[in-house]
Amino acid sequence: MNKIKQVAIQGGAGSNHEIAAKAFFNTEKLEMVPCQTFEELFETIKKDNTIYGIMAIENTLVGSILKNYTLLKDSGLVIIGEYKLRIKHQLLALPGQKIEDITEVHSHPMALAQCEEFLKKHPHIKMIASDDTAFSAEWVQKNQLKGIAAIAPELAAKHYSLEILARDIETNKRNFTRFLIISDKGKTEVEDLLVKNQVNKSSLVFSLPHSEGSLSQVLSILAFYNINLTKIQSLPVVGHEWEYLFYIDLVFDDYNRYLQSLDAIRPLISKLKVLGEYHVGKRSYDTIGNDNRPLSEQKTF
Amino acid sequence: MNKIKQVAIQGGAGSNHEIAAKAFFNTEKLEMVPCQTFEELFETIKKDNTIYGIMAIENTLVGSILKNYTLLKDSGLVIIGEYKLRIKHQLLALPGQKIEDITEVHSHPMALAQCEEFLKKHPHIKMIASDDTAFSAEWVQKNQLKGIAAIAPELAAKHYSLEILARDIETNKRNFTRFLIISDKGKTEVEDLLVKNQVNKSSLVFSLPHSEGSLSQVLSILAFYNINLTKIQSLPVVGHEWEYLFYIDLVFDDYNRYLQSLDAIRPLISKLKVLGEYHVGKRSYDTIGNDNRPLSEQKTF
Repeated sequence: MNKIKQVAIQGGAGSNHEIAAKAFFNTEKLEMVPCQTFEELFETIKKDNTIYGIMAIENTLVGSILKNYTLLKDSGLVIIGEYKLRIKHQLLALPGQKIEDITEVHSHPMALAQCEEFLKKHPHIKMIASDDTAFSAEWVQKNQLKGIAAIAPELAAKHYSLEILARDIETNKRNFTRFLIISDKGKTEVEDLLVKNQVNKSSLVFSLPHSEGSLSQVLSILAFYNINLTKIQSLPVVGHEWEYLFYIDLVFDDYNRYLQSLDAIRPLISKLKVLGEYHVGKRSYDTIGNDNRPLSEQKTF
Repeated sequence: MNKIKQVAIQGGAGSNHEIAAKAFFNTEKLEMVPCQTFEELFETIKKDNTIYGIMAIENTLVGSILKNYTLLKDSGLVIIGEYKLRIKHQLLALPGQKIEDITEVHSHPMALAQCEEFLKKHPHIKMIASDDTAFSAEWVQKNQLKGIAAIAPELAAKHYSLEILARDIETNKRNFTRFLIISDKGKTEVEDLLVKNQVNKSSLVFSLPHSEGSLSQVLSILAFYNINLTKIQSLPVVGHEWEYLFYIDLVFDDYNRYLQSLDAIRPLISKLKVLGEYHVGKRSYDTIGNDNRPLSEQKTF
């Protein structure tokens, strides 16, 4: 019998973080450790390295969550996997109410923004920003608040015995969030994966000298080694205005070739940090409403 | 005598947007047109193309303001200049009060976060998030609110006759925001600059085919033409999950050479849009507190 895994999440039980964690670990033997903030999540894992963490890092509608990149880089924890979840929003309230009874809706500002078209059709409902989708659902239930709804995932409706007043109210159905699974015991995890020949993705951060074409040289070498990019992002270095750190995601077929490419670029870069080596993530293959275009995989360039 | 220029800003009079606008145009003959949101700012300029706009695009502590990139790309307006402003925060209140009298401080969430260390030393003050630094200052003045402070620039203290209770309370003194000056009559502006031989920077957005090393090829060509990068950013394409648009900033000495390099990369990219061609921006050269390291210029790579 497997031991129960503990996973630290930002937000309450029933949040998208919990949904992504269950899908990634593919087991019901998971215990969530809810954290108010991502900072608290990192502290929790550092205090007990048997606890995993899961953290949203980018969304296809809004881009990267820059703060989480910095938290990860400074933490010393490593990425051991990723999962891409299609985000769906439900309007939840205490049972027995109609949408006409609702005067306020509470949720995370991002969730409110993503349901703008639906909410515009119900101008009598006032939008109130909160810390988290699931915490809002929990709060409605705990205080037995009539006339107040929360926007949260379906899982939160189950957790807090709320009714779905309106289903899949997100404006854009092609709304995916990429989650990183993080751990304080990265080396063992990576070795486990290597035995199974499963490492085919890596996330790096480094800085460059201020010489002309320095980024072009690094990317050329990676291309010569058949290492592909799926992401690039320059972020300012705090305290050194207008200098940048580069965050890149690489995918590859051959782990040794990837290690060789790192050796080849090392003399051209500085402050290299490998944020994690892992397996390209699965994703939720739900249908996407009336939009029948095929779901595309993450692209390389 | 020069005509008075109108400049649309997000936020109220006395905000950092007004300070940056005055520094960029280097004239007092400016009339601010305050807008509640960046969306409203773009609408304002589209309705009257004699109005300029100024918009924060990146901050050295928090990175790019992704939404503003998308707004700019979709607007059809162009960048005609940039300005880099050192951000300072002041604690403002109605005259005659002491810091012990203050129970609440209102400001933009980013400003509150940037004054965290100062606010931690005064735990009796509750932090309330608002839409804008200057609007908070105006609100304190209009309602003659005793016991309530705003965090806003010094200019807002002058505008709204408030007193500075604590000066330069930002935690990190090396805090710069880069502002873009935008206009609906780009062509004329750029021609004016070209006559004066002043165009030496450009902001582009494009997409890439999904072939291995495609970004490396584009950057190599730019390097061959001695065109330098100061920024690169991949952003997801809405509705095409895991595909990316690339936003890059280029600097160059020779405008014709830059035009040739665009022709050279055009067959390798698609959906190319030139967001603006302009002159590398000045910056505020204020001292930075006790930190005596020289202020560095924006770097190329």
